Amino acid sequence: MPEGFSAGDTAFVLVCAMLVMLMTPGLAFFYGGMVRAKSTLNMLMMSFISLGVVSVLWILFGYSLAFGPDVSGVIGNLDFVGMRNIEMDGLLDGYTIPVFAFVAFQLMFAILTPALISGAVADRFKFSAWVVFIALWVTIVYFPVAHWVWGGGWIFDIPVIDFAGGTAVHINAGVAALALVLVVGKRIGFKREAMRPHSLPLVMLGAGLLWFGWFGFNAGSGLAANGLSSVVLLNTNVAAAAAVLGWLVLERIRDGHFTSLGAASGAVAGLVAITPACSVVSPLGAIAIGLIAGVACAWAVGLKYRLGYDDSLDVVGVHLVGGIIGSLLIGLFATGTYGTEDQGLFYGGGLELLGRQAIGVAAVAVYSFVVTYVIALVLRSTIGIRASEDDERTGLDQVAHAETAYDFTGGAGVLSRSASPAATATGKPGRTDDADGGRSGHTAEAKVEA
Amino acid sequence: MPEGFSAGDTAFVLVCAMLVMLMTPGLAFFYGGMVRAKSTLNMLMMSFISLGVVSVLWILFGYSLAFGPDVSGVIGNLDFVGMRNIEMDGLLDGYTIPVFAFVAFQLMFAILTPALISGAVADRFKFSAWVVFIALWVTIVYFPVAHWVWGGGWIFDIPVIDFAGGTAVHINAGVAALALVLVVGKRIGFKREAMRPHSLPLVMLGAGLLWFGWFGFNAGSGLAANGLSSVVLLNTNVAAAAAVLGWLVLERIRDGHFTSLGAASGAVAGLVAITPACSVVSPLGAIAIGLIAGVACAWAVGLKYRLGYDDSLDVVGVHLVGGIIGSLLIGLFATGTYGTEDQGLFYGGGLELLGRQAIGVAAVAVYSFVVTYVIALVLRSTIGIRASEDDERTGLDQVAHAETAYDFTGGAGVLSRSASPAATATGKPGRTDDADGGRSGHTAEAKVEA
Amino acid sequence: MPEGFSAGDTAFVLVCAMLVMLMTPGLAFFYGGMVRAKSTLNMLMMSFISLGVVSVLWILFGYSLAFGPDVSGVIGNLDFVGMRNIEMDGLLDGYTIPVFAFVAFQLMFAILTPALISGAVADRFKFSAWVVFIALWVTIVYFPVAHWVWGGGWIFDIPVIDFAGGTAVHINAGVAALALVLVVGKRIGFKREAMRPHSLPLVMLGAGLLWFGWFGFNAGSGLAANGLSSVVLLNTNVAAAAAVLGWLVLERIRDGHFTSLGAASGAVAGLVAITPACSVVSPLGAIAIGLIAGVACAWAVGLKYRLGYDDSLDVVGVHLVGGIIGSLLIGLFATGTYGTEDQGLFYGGGLELLGRQAIGVAAVAVYSFVVTYVIALVLRSTIGIRASEDDERTGLDQVAHAETAYDFTGGAGVLSRSASPAATATGKPGRTDDADGGRSGHTAEAKVEA
Repeated sequence: MPEGFSAGDTAFVLVCAMLVMLMTPGLAFFYGGMVRAKSTLNMLMMSFISLGVVSVLWILFGYSLAFGPDVSGVIGNLDFVGMRNIEMDGLLDGYTIPVFAFVAFQLMFAILTPALISGAVADRFKFSAWVVFIALWVTIVYFPVAHWVWGGGWIFDIPVIDFAGGTAVHINAGVAALALVLVVGKRIGFKREAMRPHSLPLVMLGAGLLWFGWFGFNAGSGLAANGLSSVVLLNTNVAAAAAVLGWLVLERIRDGHFTSLGAASGAVAGLVAITPACSVVSPLGAIAIGLIAGVACAWAVGLKYRLGYDDSLDVVGVHLVGGIIGSLLIGLFATGTYGTEDQGLFYGGGLELLGRQAIGVAAVAVYSFVVTYVIALVLRSTIGIRASEDDERTGLDQVAHAETAYDFTGGAGVLSRSASPAATATGKPGRTDDADGGRSGHTAEAKVEA
Repeated sequence: MPEGFSAGDTAFVLVCAMLVMLMTPGLAFFYGGMVRAKSTLNMLMMSFISLGVVSVLWILFGYSLAFGPDVSGVIGNLDFVGMRNIEMDGLLDGYTIPVFAFVAFQLMFAILTPALISGAVADRFKFSAWVVFIALWVTIVYFPVAHWVWGGGWIFDIPVIDFAGGTAVHINAGVAALALVLVVGKRIGFKREAMRPHSLPLVMLGAGLLWFGWFGFNAGSGLAANGLSSVVLLNTNVAAAAAVLGWLVLERIRDGHFTSLGAASGAVAGLVAITPACSVVSPLGAIAIGLIAGVACAWAVGLKYRLGYDDSLDVVGVHLVGGIIGSLLIGLFATGTYGTEDQGLFYGGGLELLGRQAIGVAAVAVYSFVVTYVIALVLRSTIGIRASEDDERTGLDQVAHAETAYDFTGGAGVLSRSASPAATATGKPGRTDDADGGRSGHTAEAKVEA
Repeated sequence: MPEGFSAGDTAFVLVCAMLVMLMTPGLAFFYGGMVRAKSTLNMLMMSFISLGVVSVLWILFGYSLAFGPDVSGVIGNLDFVGMRNIEMDGLLDGYTIPVFAFVAFQLMFAILTPALISGAVADRFKFSAWVVFIALWVTIVYFPVAHWVWGGGWIFDIPVIDFAGGTAVHINAGVAALALVLVVGKRIGFKREAMRPHSLPLVMLGAGLLWFGWFGFNAGSGLAANGLSSVVLLNTNVAAAAAVLGWLVLERIRDGHFTSLGAASGAVAGLVAITPACSVVSPLGAIAIGLIAGVACAWAVGLKYRLGYDDSLDVVGVHLVGGIIGSLLIGLFATGTYGTEDQGLFYGGGLELLGRQAIGVAAVAVYSFVVTYVIALVLRSTIGIRASEDDERTGLDQVAHAETAYDFTGGAGVLSRSASPAATATGKPGRTDDADGGRSGHTAEAKVEA
């Protein structure tokens, strides 16, 4: 490897890329658990298909548009189309890692971002249209915005601080989600029927994997393993933690309960908010940002009922609101002692940084909203984006995927016969024992034979 | 970064910290699958809330108490309160990694330890009291004990060998679990009703994530990527493997079956036992320790029925017993050729090392038991720690969290209509086919409309 | 550490070893979700037990047979039995990492390979016979083959390119699966009864963890963090992605649907195919290989119905076919600019490389098939390998493990009482609301009391 290469930094960035990949399945479970069982698989597939579609587009032209040599501050050129002009051992300009490590790392961000949007249109978006939407959206929205923010484009030049994707990922996906639900419309039964999460353990699994993968997302964004990535990791964790507490406390005061869905949602809200800010605030600042995001997002997810847009799984309430909070709070909490010398208002830096951050937020929000809205309109009037009413009632799993998420007819339930007498004899009922035989056993037996 | 810094070591420790974080969700699933469906979410939340509470306390004062400059061998001072006096690029004394990497790594241990306790008091501990308990317990028990063992305190000075937490984490949590169940009392129906795990796949998921995360726990504890961390990783894996075999063989002989719960529990038992010892024994020694722990813990989990304490998910049987086994077997199996020059009895070192280990075990066990017992008594007589009998019967998920773990009314079960005739035509029944329509289909249809 | 050691490379390989370990639980879930609920745990256990058995054998003699000093190109000698002659800080010959890091990394491959086979014999293989089979198979088949391909044996010397296990792992396991199902016979009801996956979310979880862990499998196989491992990571991801698209497109054209099982299976097919080739093809080549593997494997999984062998979960169709595709396509797509200077047909290299690859494929396939067939025959005629018809109908979970995967009698379903009136009042039905009380609630209540 050439001069300036670091195996340690490369090891770190490669592992972080792997972790960010895991976020997309994590997101799939987070969302998949929240919907009703009849459209669970469709929800999972909306994320998994992003792995398929975006990975290929990224190689073909996405990376080049986002990170190719800048054209007028707006877009990358075509130098890296099909990965041409990238040498195996070539280092990323100004860094200690191979270009390909960066290509892989950034790919995972491009995969995750459209998947984030999918939660807003749960249960009713036509799957084939979703595949087309992803391809269009990453090409017209994500690749340019990533270029603006990270690839040497005009927002990068202001400069706006967005360490790991507050604007490019979360505001971008959140505002696109809003545009999309305005075009696709509400689920049948919105505000009238209870639409309870069908599996909260699946939601918690998703939240756990997201939290884990987010460490790669944030700590990897410095493209090195050093003091900065260490404080970023710590900040990421404590902001998520504080947001869990913030969300749960609000819930407890308002509703009288600590819900597991609140804990999972709070964690994601905190992770979103700290994403742009993790490299410039202190751990105490991270706690503050997390707390604020937890409370604010817990409040913001109720807006859809008041304002009447069906952001089904709260992409707007969590990713847009959380992303804005994190991006703007940089203007208050940046200490000037970590990843930037810019100082926020609370550290003596005046309002200038806040102003720059606001420009970045507004630019991404406006662009993404308008273009996503247009894409959605075009798709609606051509291939159609909404499942039929009948299909929506039946559930998209059967309609689009010819599957159902679960089939317990083959044996779930209590033991159908006294399978472990010895276990009972040794007094270990909590671990291996069988339940009472009679009625339940018969039911199970019947199920087995069904 | 300053002289003496290693990007490779830092990359390794940061990734290990991420892995240890994942252990807490992993533990949540391990425990959550073992309880009945009606208190699954509460079980998950008892672990997740530790991520929230302990992360914040750690920044505020926990790290400083555990790893601040030593005060009389008993506690750290307040130099690092709120992370003050820690520079982004400052290295940990005597190591090659940033202080913040160590802060993050150790935080994950502090989160996991109280979560471990929760399994013992499943189904009946008031959730709000649990939040208070965690805050008190880490402050009065965990932070001091971590200081004694790892932070330059009196046990560290003996010295007692505890590479990754046999005393500080597992004996500490296991004995606290015992104290807590003695105060909170038994579940309704203990020893009378079958209380079967509601989802063994969830238990296996938890075990898998714990095994994976434990690699970070143990291999990261040397704070470097080198020969020692390599042998530690290998030892960790083979001890877990041997314990799976040990547990299953005992089960087979005693009960006639190999249970999946036994495999999962055996893995954890082996991982617990090798935790203190992984840096000082050979891979053959690790196999021996794993086998012994697997058999011993499989036997020990039956004690609760004989002695009458309701350690619901066997925290005492696995973590206390496994922790003691691993800590003491160092006195027999330490080769003197890996992470220490101290030799155990079998390698010519006499009984001196065993004696030191016994002191460490006893000290942590006594301190943790007494203080946890007092905390529990105080909480019981003030805010109360036990759910009402009615609430316990209903299940804590509804009572404390206003949720149920699962809701399959929205579409689980067999396909309600012949969705994929083409699949059948091409002869692929195993992958996409539909079941027989009639009766079952109708049921499913009815469910969808419910 | 000695001269030539790299902490960065070591950190990377250790983390990759951890990731490969996670593939075995991932595989367990992938397979476990695909079977009916009545043999889910048995399926999980067939993978988990490999962690137990192979880890111990690896230390005792497996590593030495596979990677000990070569004896006549056929097998390693006994120099490393019990890990003797391996120093903690000794480096792997010609590499920058400790020998123990390599021992741990390669162990995880040895664990995964027999577990891969288990999917073929789902629902009917006696569990105790499976344990014996694994022990024999890794000893007589896997350890020698690993030696031939990677340990300096005769295939290594040809040389055949197999970067991460196309022959040694996937063809080896796939062909062994074929031999095994020919001896053990078909499931009761094969081709007559619908045998639907009982939990597709579990399958997707498995696929997600496999994809994640596969990054370690492939990128770690260069035993360093550098430009090559970066391009390997990228190739691995895009091949999996392209195969998802390939499988789904074929499915859509043939059956009219995009199934989640197809997406999961396609991902694995792509990962299998890129495994041997990931170090020698360009990202565009990886896309091509993924697409071809996705389409071909989607077609190949139908062969079992036409030819009449019951490869239950398509180990032959995915691992054997995918492994052959990837190993042979090296002969077409190797660019000569990444991990080898050998060029494939499309890059001007003629047919010589393809010929060498074909020799490797054929050698492993023939050896593994014959020896596995013999092992299976011997076991069938001694301890027996097939569960009784009665046991197979009942399900192996109860028979062999005295357990059932799920028990929702303790509280799944809708909320049994109006638990969160406040939530409804604040208009948050999507997140915490309760369902209609009456009928459903009563049912749930009854369940709780059952």
